Parts: sequence; C-alpha cells; structure tokens
Amino acid sequence: MNIDMIRDAARRAAGHIRRTPLLTSPFLDEIAGRRVYVKPECLQHTGSFKARGAWSALSAMDPDLRSAGVMAYSSGNHAQGVAWAAACHGAPAVILMPSDAPALKRANTAALGAEVVLYDRATESREEIGERIATERGLTLVRPYDEPQVIAGQGTVGLEIAAQAAEAGIDAAEVLVCCGGGGLTSGIALACEAEAPGLRVRPVEPEGFDDVRRSLLAGGIERNDSLSGSICDAIVTPQPGDLTFPIIRRLCGPGLAVSDDEALHGMAQAFLRLKVVAEPGGAVALAAALLRPTEITGDAVVVVISGGNVDPEVHSGALARHGRTS
Amino acid sequence: MNIDMIRDAARRAAGHIRRTPLLTSPFLDEIAGRRVYVKPECLQHTGSFKARGAWSALSAMDPDLRSAGVMAYSSGNHAQGVAWAAACHGAPAVILMPSDAPALKRANTAALGAEVVLYDRATESREEIGERIATERGLTLVRPYDEPQVIAGQGTVGLEIAAQAAEAGIDAAEVLVCCGGGGLTSGIALACEAEAPGLRVRPVEPEGFDDVRRSLLAGGIERNDSLSGSICDAIVTPQPGDLTFPIIRRLCGPGLAVSDDEALHGMAQAFLRLKVVAEPGGAVALAAALLRPTEITGDAVVVVISGGNVDPEVHSGALARHGRTS
Repeated sequence: MNIDMIRDAARRAAGHIRRTPLLTSPFLDEIAGRRVYVKPECLQHTGSFKARGAWSALSAMDPDLRSAGVMAYSSGNHAQGVAWAAACHGAPAVILMPSDAPALKRANTAALGAEVVLYDRATESREEIGERIATERGLTLVRPYDEPQVIAGQGTVGLEIAAQAAEAGIDAAEVLVCCGGGGLTSGIALACEAEAPGLRVRPVEPEGFDDVRRSLLAGGIERNDSLSGSICDAIVTPQPGDLTFPIIRRLCGPGLAVSDDEALHGMAQAFLRLKVVAEPGGAVALAAALLRPTEITGDAVVVVISGGNVDPEVHSGALARHGRTS
Repeated sequence: MNIDMIRDAARRAAGHIRRTPLLTSPFLDEIAGRRVYVKPECLQHTGSFKARGAWSALSAMDPDLRSAGVMAYSSGNHAQGVAWAAACHGAPAVILMPSDAPALKRANTAALGAEVVLYDRATESREEIGERIATERGLTLVRPYDEPQVIAGQGTVGLEIAAQAAEAGIDAAEVLVCCGGGGLTSGIALACEAEAPGLRVRPVEPEGFDDVRRSLLAGGIERNDSLSGSICDAIVTPQPGDLTFPIIRRLCGPGLAVSDDEALHGMAQAFLRLKVVAEPGGAVALAAALLRPTEITGDAVVVVISGGNVDPEVHSGALARHGRTS
C-alpha cells in the first residue's frame, strides 16, 4: 500500500470518477471560528466516495475474474459503489446488506443491477457469510476497506484535496474525515503525506462507536462493544482494519467523536449553507468542525462529507431539529 | 451584448466563481427516457447563479464608483449575490427589501455585510426610496437581469456547459434553463451560440407565470397577469427584459412551463439522485426534463438547477410529497 497505487488509481479513474469541488461558506466559517473547506463526496457517483474504491478495485481486476462476478458486504454505500462499478464494467455483482440498512440504499443497490442478500447485523458475521457465498459462486470479494486497491481508490480524494488546498493557499490544516473501517481515512492520509505534508488527517466517528479513536489512544486495535444504535450507519464497523490501522496510527489523529444529534446538526448546516445533502455518517466531520472548535487547531480546516444517501424522513427530521436560521 | 463580454466576465471570475460540475444519474436517465446532464448552480457561492452576474457587474465597475457603493432591489437571490460580490470587492452595498421578505433571506443578506433597508410594499415605492438613497450616497444600481454585465456573468454558465458538454461527447442537445427575467437564459444562449451551436436553450417557467413562453409565441413582450401565487418566487418577474428578450427570441425556444407540484417533484429528485438542494424556482428545468419528456427532443438534455435557497419546511414538504423511492 503506497502512494504509487493511489496515483495509478487516479489514472484509471480519469473520465469515470468525478473531481468533487471544495466548497466554502462565510456562515460556516463564522460558526467554526476558522475557515472551513468542505469536500462534498456526496456528489460523487452513487452518492458517496465508495464509488472511487469500487472503481479502483474493479478496474484493477483480471478481466476474466471480473467477468465471473464480484461480491461485497455493505450497509449501503460500498454496496452501491460496487454495484455501479460492476455495471459499468459489465460484471455481475452480489451484495450482502444488513436487514436494517436504509431503504434508499437497498433500493438503489438493486436498481443499479446487483443481487441483494440481507443478513442480521446484530447476530451474524457479514465477513463469514460473504466469504461463503463468494466461494460458492466463484465471485471475487471486494472488501469495503481492508483491500489495497480500495484504499488506493479512496486515496484519490486525498490527491484532490492536496491539489485544491494548494490552489486555495492552504499549506497547513487538519483534515477531518468521517471514519468507519478507515479506508477513506488511510487513503487520504497517504495521499497527503506525499503531496501535502502540512495537512494532517483526523478521523471522526460517532460517540459510542469510536473504535478508531480508542485504538489510536491505546496504540492497538480496539473493538466496538455494539454495532447497532447509531444513526450513522455508514461508518459503524466492528474495528479498524488490519491494513488501514497501521497507516492511520502512523499518520493520523487524534480522533474525534460526535453525538447523533451533532451529526443531524451537521446535516442541517450542509443543507442551509452548502446546498448539499449529507447522510448522518457523512456529516460527522462537518459536525466536529462546527461544534467542537476547541478540539481542533489551526486557522483553516478541511472537512470531507463522505456521503448523502439518507432517507427523506431522516433528512427532514434533521432540518426540523436544527434547520432554524435565526 | 456579445460573446466577448461573456469571455471577459469569465476571465474576471477566475478564482472567484465556482466552476460547478455536470452531474448525472442513471435513475434520472431512466425517468426522463434520455441522458440527463445537470448543472447545479445551487452549489455556486450564495446558493445561486446570481453570484456570477453580481461578480461580473462589480468587477467591471469603475473602481471609484464601486468604492462609493452599490444598490440592488431584491428579496432573494440577486440580493445575496450583490451583497457577496460587494463584500469581496470591499464595496458598501445597500439592498432594498420588502419588509415581508423571508427572514432567512434578510438575515443572509445582512450577514453577507450589506445594509438592508426595508420598505412597506403596500404604502411605499421602492423606486422612490432607492433613488433617494442612491443619490444621497452616490450608489450605483445593479439591475437583476436587464444589465449587460449581469447577462455576461450569467453567460459564464453557458461557457462551462459548452466545455463540459464537449467533454461528455454531447454535440447536440436542448438546454433547459429556469427563466425569470431572462438574464441566465440569454447569457447561456449567447455562450452556446458561439461555443456549442448544437445546444439549443429552452426557457422553463412556472405555469401561470410563463411570460417568456407566451412572448416567444406572440413574437413580442407579454406580461404576467399576477406576480403572486407561485411557490417559484425566484423566477416570477413581470415580463421579459428589454435587453434579454431580443436575445431569447433570436436564439431560444420554444418555452416550457411546469406546475408548482412538478417543481416540488424536481426538488425531490435532486435530493434523491444528485444529493443537491434545489429551491422550487431552481427545479423547474429538472422537472420539465423528467416529467415532460414528450415536449423535449434528442437523446440527451442539459438542465440547469439555478438555485438552492429554500426554507427547510418547503424542502421537507417536497420530500414528503415526492420523496418515496419505491
């Protein structure tokens, strides 16, 4: 896992993956007490950065293996990313999803042409089920984060941030990244290490599901006690990845954690000030930037909104709670 | 009013105005029955394309006049655009707004640094008050659309569409544009005439407030009977502009009109499929592309979402009505 793999992924992505903009708002700057630069990966194909990792993995596969089909397990965004990238490559895809995944994500994954298989998040291991089905059907498993080509694809976000930060005159800043298994966090960190060493990545997680923050503090992998009970479904994972954590430990931290209500607040501000749709797990980094200013240093902060696949009722609830502007 | 003014406006805008992306979704393509390319100007500074025209006007002004200050009449997006552009240029701005303008828009305009002067629609004349203040303080009026440098600024959207369409391999398509006074429509049409002659601009308006469509049919300027009763507040104007209509008549048409409910449907699809926030008047072109397929020709259609400054309650109402995904 190195910067050359990220650069190769960026070359394979050209013409297929969107270069998302870097957005600003004087209103967000005022709330945060520093300049806030937002990378809205909700505008990526399939509504999240996961399209990058999936494209990278599929485009790097042996064509014969790829045409036999791929498999993924995911609460939704990796599912849609793999379904989309598979459809673009003409490859069949089977996606294993928790039965409590948001309806929009389930529907979208199926509509993108994938076969969806549901499992119980609380009592079953998606890794075990996934590997069994993949073996039975001769499918290649595309892991959501502990997969070098997936990390390389997510790292292309970091290459863009490095270039866009330079254009904006930012030479030192913290980069807040919504963090589940750590694929996006580690990929961005590797890209910034090579191309923007003044940028330091800090993972942001939901309170109570902050395995990466605790692992960084402990100096070794810590698990979450539970995997249910957060609205931030996209970024709740059992523990940091075996590939991602050593990178995160070397390059990132300290971690941050925000409450579900703070995530909803971040969603409302994305709506009001940036005109983009963030899902709860995609809004935790923005929430930290806006609501935890004393836990951040520097005149400027870069924030990744990692996805926007949220059910309408949840989004409207966030606005009802935090959408007042006066 | 010519293409060179638009190219000059684009040069002055470099580094200040965002180049918004061109977004796609296989779900929108399926609904529309053709490929749909969406230009989300809701992601522009201040949440609408109006920042482009305001930037163009302010950046083209004589510096001494500009530093004396500018004035605008507006209760909405033009107000915020002028306030923002004036603040960026260090120029004072006075915005005359009706006392019943939405609190959000008043607050945003003031927060962007403008002096907001309220007047009573029922008992006071904004022109009288505006002329008195402008004369007293030596302010220059920036008109919302019938102003060459404003049209030139809005035309930079068209330069970007021409370039992005070429990158996407589109050499012929209709370009649906949300249309009020016609500044954006005429600016895009002039840019496409010069740089993408296979693109034809078609204005889209709210039903019952379709003065441009009727003017095109009649061959001369027609007025709207009423100015109240549409949720598409941003694009309801008394009649086409004296500068904009001759351009629209020469290059654009036929016009399209959609109902308020269709505009809400467009907003919901922008949320679900593109993860961007559209206001009702900003969604009419997308609504036409999705819901009026038989009134459009060609394999591909380009759509401008002109703004995203919508109250949370209105947005949530659109999702409650049209946000179902199954």
